Amino acid sequence: MGTIISGGTVVTAGDVGLADVLLEGEVVSALAKDIPRAGHELVNAKGCLVMPGGIDPHTHLDMPFGGTITADDFKTGTTAAAIGGTTTIIDFALHQKDKSLREALDTWHKKARGKAVIDYAFHVSVADGRDEIIAEIPQIIETEGVSSFKVFMAYKNVLQVDDQTMFKVLKACARHGGLVQVHAENGDVIDVLVNEARAAGRKEPKHHALTRPPQAEAEATWRAIRLAEMAQAPLYVVHVTCAMAADAVSEARKWGLPVYGETCEQYLVCDSSDYERPGFEGANYVMSPPLRGKADQSALLCKLKNMDLHTVASDHCSFNHAKQKELGRDDFSKIPNGAPTIEDRMAILFHYGVNAGVIGLSSFVALTSTNAAKLFGLYPRKGTIAVGSDADILIWDPGAARTICAADHHMNVDNNIFEGMQVTGKPRSVFLRGSKIVENGRFTGSAGSGVFQKSAKFFPIQL
Amino acid sequence: MGTIISGGTVVTAGDVGLADVLLEGEVVSALAKDIPRAGHELVNAKGCLVMPGGIDPHTHLDMPFGGTITADDFKTGTTAAAIGGTTTIIDFALHQKDKSLREALDTWHKKARGKAVIDYAFHVSVADGRDEIIAEIPQIIETEGVSSFKVFMAYKNVLQVDDQTMFKVLKACARHGGLVQVHAENGDVIDVLVNEARAAGRKEPKHHALTRPPQAEAEATWRAIRLAEMAQAPLYVVHVTCAMAADAVSEARKWGLPVYGETCEQYLVCDSSDYERPGFEGANYVMSPPLRGKADQSALLCKLKNMDLHTVASDHCSFNHAKQKELGRDDFSKIPNGAPTIEDRMAILFHYGVNAGVIGLSSFVALTSTNAAKLFGLYPRKGTIAVGSDADILIWDPGAARTICAADHHMNVDNNIFEGMQVTGKPRSVFLRGSKIVENGRFTGSAGSGVFQKSAKFFPIQL
Amino acid sequence: MGTIISGGTVVTAGDVGLADVLLEGEVVSALAKDIPRAGHELVNAKGCLVMPGGIDPHTHLDMPFGGTITADDFKTGTTAAAIGGTTTIIDFALHQKDKSLREALDTWHKKARGKAVIDYAFHVSVADGRDEIIAEIPQIIETEGVSSFKVFMAYKNVLQVDDQTMFKVLKACARHGGLVQVHAENGDVIDVLVNEARAAGRKEPKHHALTRPPQAEAEATWRAIRLAEMAQAPLYVVHVTCAMAADAVSEARKWGLPVYGETCEQYLVCDSSDYERPGFEGANYVMSPPLRGKADQSALLCKLKNMDLHTVASDHCSFNHAKQKELGRDDFSKIPNGAPTIEDRMAILFHYGVNAGVIGLSSFVALTSTNAAKLFGLYPRKGTIAVGSDADILIWDPGAARTICAADHHMNVDNNIFEGMQVTGKPRSVFLRGSKIVENGRFTGSAGSGVFQKSAKFFPIQL
Amino acid sequence: MGTIISGGTVVTAGDVGLADVLLEGEVVSALAKDIPRAGHELVNAKGCLVMPGGIDPHTHLDMPFGGTITADDFKTGTTAAAIGGTTTIIDFALHQKDKSLREALDTWHKKARGKAVIDYAFHVSVADGRDEIIAEIPQIIETEGVSSFKVFMAYKNVLQVDDQTMFKVLKACARHGGLVQVHAENGDVIDVLVNEARAAGRKEPKHHALTRPPQAEAEATWRAIRLAEMAQAPLYVVHVTCAMAADAVSEARKWGLPVYGETCEQYLVCDSSDYERPGFEGANYVMSPPLRGKADQSALLCKLKNMDLHTVASDHCSFNHAKQKELGRDDFSKIPNGAPTIEDRMAILFHYGVNAGVIGLSSFVALTSTNAAKLFGLYPRKGTIAVGSDADILIWDPGAARTICAADHHMNVDNNIFEGMQVTGKPRSVFLRGSKIVENGRFTGSAGSGVFQKSAKFFPIQL
Repeated sequence: MGTIISGGTVVTAGDVGLADVLLEGEVVSALAKDIPRAGHELVNAKGCLVMPGGIDPHTHLDMPFGGTITADDFKTGTTAAAIGGTTTIIDFALHQKDKSLREALDTWHKKARGKAVIDYAFHVSVADGRDEIIAEIPQIIETEGVSSFKVFMAYKNVLQVDDQTMFKVLKACARHGGLVQVHAENGDVIDVLVNEARAAGRKEPKHHALTRPPQAEAEATWRAIRLAEMAQAPLYVVHVTCAMAADAVSEARKWGLPVYGETCEQYLVCDSSDYERPGFEGANYVMSPPLRGKADQSALLCKLKNMDLHTVASDHCSFNHAKQKELGRDDFSKIPNGAPTIEDRMAILFHYGVNAGVIGLSSFVALTSTNAAKLFGLYPRKGTIAVGSDADILIWDPGAARTICAADHHMNVDNNIFEGMQVTGKPRSVFLRGSKIVENGRFTGSAGSGVFQKSAKFFPIQL
Repeated sequence: MGTIISGGTVVTAGDVGLADVLLEGEVVSALAKDIPRAGHELVNAKGCLVMPGGIDPHTHLDMPFGGTITADDFKTGTTAAAIGGTTTIIDFALHQKDKSLREALDTWHKKARGKAVIDYAFHVSVADGRDEIIAEIPQIIETEGVSSFKVFMAYKNVLQVDDQTMFKVLKACARHGGLVQVHAENGDVIDVLVNEARAAGRKEPKHHALTRPPQAEAEATWRAIRLAEMAQAPLYVVHVTCAMAADAVSEARKWGLPVYGETCEQYLVCDSSDYERPGFEGANYVMSPPLRGKADQSALLCKLKNMDLHTVASDHCSFNHAKQKELGRDDFSKIPNGAPTIEDRMAILFHYGVNAGVIGLSSFVALTSTNAAKLFGLYPRKGTIAVGSDADILIWDPGAARTICAADHHMNVDNNIFEGMQVTGKPRSVFLRGSKIVENGRFTGSAGSGVFQKSAKFFPIQL
Repeated sequence: MGTIISGGTVVTAGDVGLADVLLEGEVVSALAKDIPRAGHELVNAKGCLVMPGGIDPHTHLDMPFGGTITADDFKTGTTAAAIGGTTTIIDFALHQKDKSLREALDTWHKKARGKAVIDYAFHVSVADGRDEIIAEIPQIIETEGVSSFKVFMAYKNVLQVDDQTMFKVLKACARHGGLVQVHAENGDVIDVLVNEARAAGRKEPKHHALTRPPQAEAEATWRAIRLAEMAQAPLYVVHVTCAMAADAVSEARKWGLPVYGETCEQYLVCDSSDYERPGFEGANYVMSPPLRGKADQSALLCKLKNMDLHTVASDHCSFNHAKQKELGRDDFSKIPNGAPTIEDRMAILFHYGVNAGVIGLSSFVALTSTNAAKLFGLYPRKGTIAVGSDADILIWDPGAARTICAADHHMNVDNNIFEGMQVTGKPRSVFLRGSKIVENGRFTGSAGSGVFQKSAKFFPIQL
Repeated sequence: MGTIISGGTVVTAGDVGLADVLLEGEVVSALAKDIPRAGHELVNAKGCLVMPGGIDPHTHLDMPFGGTITADDFKTGTTAAAIGGTTTIIDFALHQKDKSLREALDTWHKKARGKAVIDYAFHVSVADGRDEIIAEIPQIIETEGVSSFKVFMAYKNVLQVDDQTMFKVLKACARHGGLVQVHAENGDVIDVLVNEARAAGRKEPKHHALTRPPQAEAEATWRAIRLAEMAQAPLYVVHVTCAMAADAVSEARKWGLPVYGETCEQYLVCDSSDYERPGFEGANYVMSPPLRGKADQSALLCKLKNMDLHTVASDHCSFNHAKQKELGRDDFSKIPNGAPTIEDRMAILFHYGVNAGVIGLSSFVALTSTNAAKLFGLYPRKGTIAVGSDADILIWDPGAARTICAADHHMNVDNNIFEGMQVTGKPRSVFLRGSKIVENGRFTGSAGSGVFQKSAKFFPIQL
């Protein structure tokens, strides 16, 4: 027998309205007024929003970085995600220069299998432009169920590719149904600025931001857009942090180009003054691109409102302050980049977007779930509450308040950059393919119940 | 018993997917997989799109203009609309300078009652800014179920208001939940240009376009936006025809302003060269603003794609060529302004937008129905297929082709500006609040079955 | 015999270099290295800049306004101008609705004749668009030596014209070699806002600024530009005060339109916080458009640097605080609009522009003299130091410092909005057509020595 | 004794007016009305424009390229330049990766010395970013009289530098008074496109343009601007060819950045259809960036008019059709890049700019001479007619017509891309530092009379 979610306000990217939802097997089988009990389990959602489970299209779990490894693996990371309302993540399989893309995927499948408690898909990064790598792209799309390929324009001598590689990847994706993702910062400039700062004895976390100015991001964003235009390829810009870069995305769309932008919740509510927190606490906020100014926060929110940016991801990449962030105590450039954001993504956007009156409910669903599903080939299986869709359901209590706090969060890490923020709105329960996995803030599912999701080819659905 | 629409692809502004739809009474009661027959009438929609009935937010039926009266009244006009897939129109009640707004509404209610075959709502125009008129605005919103107020920046000495009146209307609407609509063309400039052309003996229809340049529209659009900004009011720009004006709307949205834009299907497919058709045929294309160039057509389509314009209306305002358009045979300025477009609105956008690969299915529904419902206070009763919504359903056969032709159209007029266009996609059947009113191109409903729909106050739902 | 100005650095709009300048009769007869004494008077300009006398293209002397009259007439006003380094002003002859343009000029000629101590030309305003007024425009241009016509978009029910009048004036000027000047603020909006503020009991000077928002200026500037574009007319926007409006001018120029912009020195150094000065001192800063924010100041300076604005005028319009500004003690809308700025125009731009490293010397000359001469038909007689030009010469000591102070200024008014500013750079001596009229801050000329200067037709010389 | 140029209209960047000019020794010693004969040679310039000799800031003489060498050396190239009205060139000393900048200059000094018939200065290119090269930059500025440094963003594996090198050069120049010049095209993208075209068997000259799209130039221009902004360095973009790239320059200036743009006369009058000329004639038009469309031509002209681009250079780089251009008969990518344009630069701009009514006379002088002098540290010695300036004088007959023709041009090359164009306006005589070197189209000077001109440090004079 199934489950009836009854009496709630169902919210999708298009609609907001009262309806009962019937879950049967792993899917949604009906939306109706007053579905008869008929042996189904009844979940009372009165006063709650019933939304598709969140899709977080940008996570880094169990990832090596600069000699250490992220604090969260697929078990702890996805558990925290689930508790926050997310039922699918898309993690990055990192390609290594001398290896194949397939090997990267193999590695990541191993990391996830048996651990993930929610569903997952993969993007794969491309570290070099050898002919065999470019040739591998169509195979990956056709056979591996992975259709998004990321290139880094930053991290000189580590992950950074040159424009030629980026252009080749764009052309291959344009031809074969892939979507290129780009980390847009000019790594060459940053490398010079970082070395100068170090040579001048500037050690504190704030120099992380000062050596990665917004112009470096704006430049790279424009460059990626122009290369995509010349390659006739769609483009997805990850973690847009500032007005300058977001304007580039909007402008490209104005020209009619299929360019999409993502931001992360931390860029909406944290800012560069956080780097100057006392002690070494600023290190917790070190991520790339860095946090920006207050004006950028409101610019990003306005872009989300107008759907000029399309997704809110976490870019979750957690490191403990102790022993990990501390690696950079004497050199800001050695601080591992990233922050634990997977759990609070939806709460932050709900509180600072919806409650603030800027983001509508349907937009909230589009930004946290539907758009990612559409862009990354998971729709309509994921990303909506519709007949036949996976029964990934988030029952959200819009009036429940809480204070974010590392002491009681579920991520496996000793810090939380949203520490102390009071947010209203949190999951009451979460269903993954019809099974309840979260109840009142407790995880009730089991490790390994997450299933790998194949991504279909990119198709420029109008968002 | 109800009706099951079975096997079709249900399309809403947010979703596209297979589902059965159950209509009970006047509303949608369920969406589900394989709804059991159980005594309901079964409509096979296999291979068809099942969409919310169209909402045409800009029509002029039974309207006096320059000494004549439009060819279509509420009976013939709404019948043609229904056959084209539209189940609700919003018509303009024209205020007269020395009268009250209420009187305008009374007049229009009389025109519609007993005649309209589909549902209808009203906008009311505001012809002057007397204190009592401004004071009437909140009453109209509260008691009449009309929440949108139109001002004309053109038609000098006839409908045109000055900036002070416009600004007062904007302020009143901002305070009381109204939405101001603006016909944005600079009537002062046009008046001078028209008089010059007439004085110079320029008579032909093309001078209609030459005396109403796109700059006159762009100017007025910017002006209206800036006034709305200063009044802190939302704004809806009707019939945007050119890139210059559409860019103004986009730019205002970029600043975060609640500014919305409408275009009409004729601006996507007809152009100013139509004024030079042989004989006096160009007169049929005389409307205000006039048709523009080819580049504007693609600019508008790109704006629709990016949801930088929000609705596609018909601005239906039909005049017979014989005896009506001919009034201007010796003077282009005497040609009645307007064209018969209510019937083919959805077909034109489907063919030239969706089939052309520019507009997605969900965007099609948003542009032809959902957005208008949301902006004009009819949502969620109208504008979607959701549990509890009015069962206004359009079953669309995406593969059915036809040639548009005045000889067999259903509007009460002797010309069709889309004459000869071959379009693919047409209604198979149309339901109004659960009752079938169109079947295979034949109207099966009855006059007077349309019901006036009260509009709720404007609320800036994110579109 | 003539005068040799020897050893100075001659600065023109194109060049900066050491040279002697020989003045013979009323004109410059030679520039050379070491001109032999040969009986000429020798003026040592070592260490000084030798520049063309300033041209102030926007003054209001002996002008009635709101029941009072400006504190300075042509004698006191031009004397102060001369001491500040200005040798030509262009004053506005104000047209009255029921009279002819010619009568306005007659009136102004009477005001100036026998009083002006420096040369002067006239713009004429146009208060209404009667056919006879439009017909008078070519006559004025051909026979009166006046080629610039100003329309006001503000001052509802007083000076404001409607768009039709503005458009007709633009068309007449386009055809006959006139240049239209526009005071660009939306008077309709301002009128509503002022009345609201008064009704709400808001009396203080700051409400002058709050009821004239920058959007009202930006709107009107765009409108004027679009009308000029449709009329194929050149346009000169007076007193641009904010980035929004200045951007409109730049954008129009980017399209290739002959649109020019003026700002005033007060908009570069005073700001809206001045309205909140203690007591009623804020009233001294009441002018239209009002002072803006700090960000606008730097935007304007950047526009001047890039020659996106073309002239720095004073808009001198002086009223005594006592008895005049005080008329508005209980009602900000009764404060006479304007400030005494004719004397310090060049010093302010020199100090805050040139000394600040933003404006180059040649740009300084272009902005304070040459461009006005070129735009208003006085070049090459005025506006440069070249063979054959009028010997209007300003010897400027770039190192001389002074503090601006109403107590010792030469304007006939009891306040100075630049009071207390310390500026470096002031005239050492000033020559008008070869005669020295200022020496070390003392006026040495005589009333009535100023001569009316006929303006040639506008010709779009590239500035 | 000196020379009097009598009765002509003297044109400088700031002024236009009748005056006699006295040349004594190598400099201008006076401008005056009717200079007495007094033993001076008298040159009658009645009816002519007397302008500063042209400065061509972008030439490539005696330059190796792709295994061949340009057709013109310093003797033939400067002779043709002189006949065209140019009295100073700035040539590029090309740095080789393993050598010092100093060696590049030494090589170029050898090429010029004893051959150049007009004055010359040098820019030096920077081929790599080794520490010792960056360290050499201040030395070159201080001791070599060279203050402009060029980097190539195109020519992958040949001249192209990476962003890190460019950024380091920008920082060094910002600190030491240098001006960075950039060839802005994305060489990575072009390399891929060229290889694809070759692999696909596309051989014809038109593929040169198709593999170097305007987006590649726009991208690189934006990138260079952003890098300059981050380095707080001035920037000079050479050979801007299209609206997209020119808009980048304008936009940067709007932000207040010291960014300057150059275009070349060929981009104003030739276009990409020239690549499709019959036979292999299209090869003569192969240059980088390539010729663009008609719309770009008018955009560039409008930018010049508004001084949003600052110089018109030739980018002279001549190759014979026979044996040189023919190297690419079977492979467009082997066609030597460049065209012979040094001789007709001023005539083309005069005819298509000034005679067309777009460019004013003062702007013509600024664009062809003064601005280059100011930007490259030669002003006021060069670039104007002022007391004390070098007597480099061009007497220009604005009414003399001629047809451009390779058969009688003076460049040492068998083709002319302006062949057959009829232009009005040509030099009557040319003076270099007081000596006549051209008379009625004949060169009357002597090889080796050109002198190397030291460039002062860059100073952001407002242009």
